Amino acid sequence: MSAQRVTAAVLIVGDEILSGRTQDINLSAIAKFLGVLGVEVAEARVVSDVHDDIVAALNALRTRWDYVITTGGIGPTHDDITADGVAAAFGVPLYEHPEIIALMLQRYQPSELNAARRRMARVPEGGELIKNPVQGPPGFTIGNVFVLAGVPSIMRGMLLDVGPRLKGGTVVLSRTVRVEGFGEGIIAAPLEATAKAYPEMSLGSYPFSSPDLYGSNLVLRARDPQELDRATADLIAALEAAEITGARVMEA
Amino acid sequence: MSAQRVTAAVLIVGDEILSGRTQDINLSAIAKFLGVLGVEVAEARVVSDVHDDIVAALNALRTRWDYVITTGGIGPTHDDITADGVAAAFGVPLYEHPEIIALMLQRYQPSELNAARRRMARVPEGGELIKNPVQGPPGFTIGNVFVLAGVPSIMRGMLLDVGPRLKGGTVVLSRTVRVEGFGEGIIAAPLEATAKAYPEMSLGSYPFSSPDLYGSNLVLRARDPQELDRATADLIAALEAAEITGARVMEA
Repeated sequence: MSAQRVTAAVLIVGDEILSGRTQDINLSAIAKFLGVLGVEVAEARVVSDVHDDIVAALNALRTRWDYVITTGGIGPTHDDITADGVAAAFGVPLYEHPEIIALMLQRYQPSELNAARRRMARVPEGGELIKNPVQGPPGFTIGNVFVLAGVPSIMRGMLLDVGPRLKGGTVVLSRTVRVEGFGEGIIAAPLEATAKAYPEMSLGSYPFSSPDLYGSNLVLRARDPQELDRATADLIAALEAAEITGARVMEA
Repeated sequence: MSAQRVTAAVLIVGDEILSGRTQDINLSAIAKFLGVLGVEVAEARVVSDVHDDIVAALNALRTRWDYVITTGGIGPTHDDITADGVAAAFGVPLYEHPEIIALMLQRYQPSELNAARRRMARVPEGGELIKNPVQGPPGFTIGNVFVLAGVPSIMRGMLLDVGPRLKGGTVVLSRTVRVEGFGEGIIAAPLEATAKAYPEMSLGSYPFSSPDLYGSNLVLRARDPQELDRATADLIAALEAAEITGARVMEA
């Protein structure tokens, strides 16, 4: 085994997420997309549309994790300042990318290419474009940072051009063991015993309850499929030894 | 005017959010709840179930913002380590809170009070309990940090006992001006002009588009209701001057 951990952070930029006006759904979409490629989202932050906060968060995340994906703040309005923050973090100027201007001129007359629209053509020096198959201008990447739109449908479209640029590690596999009719308070001991026997793995418990049914989904995560099989079997045996019956393996 | 800004950060603890398995809905619920009390969520972070990451994030957030709300990681299983992280951040030990033990003994026989359940009775020295009107043990608060459950229904129940403990500032009021049939590329200039005239306010643009309709919701946010009225009128006038017609004020 030479399982390799490759990590990413997600940086969500936008007052509207922090005010509660908009429910973020990008983090989970990015996590699932990257997970399949063997890139594990290890941290996420949400910052407001404040230049220094974007720069500080970006520098903290890009030095610690292998990749950073940002969402939001790349539109044409004055509060779209992510490109400025990324350029400042890397200490490079922004310039108007001729390819984006050319793309815009397919849609707009030269007279319609106003200052606001030109804002969206700004890319940090040394950056490369990320294709936008949905609508609007491209995103960009510089260093280990990928700068995507905040609108979920556009963000997901851009991810398609991020995937091939990432060097993924070993994919983390997961399996869920569902236990019904027993609470976490008695599941905890056999779960912890199994977790201690597999220190490289992550084992979590996610309880559910309704008037009709309660229990917990026990999620095992490992990079080694054989280890995942062994730990699953050991967990079920440990549950049964604790008289917690009926545990069953769900599709991951 | 002596508008006062009071801030909070949200720290979400849990591998399941970062893996994409669980969609967080707590951040927006907390932001809306606190907003009404005059407490503005200014940053959010999601960290995994790793002790040092919880401690580092907590110390960064509690020193910068007025309050910190954490969600997740306070159940009975081995991966529930938020209390440990909070205690370490404050440099105090955990102890078994007699009130939580007493609550548990209303539900369980003494013989059922196993090590896992007792984990949930651990509170940092100097902490106070936060009532849980839904199910399970209380949360707790220490210093400017409030430690809540991750299950959304329980988290929202606990928030009811957090509210009265906060010293809120001036509530941020918001108003939405909806523009249909015009894109952000031409809305940007009048929006920016208005934003520059009201530097204390936050003005954002949130575009929408469907095959039938496109446009943008322009959101104005201010602590001073009269300033909000003036800026709204100025924005609509600026839009009309730019021949962007039909803008209308929506309920905030």
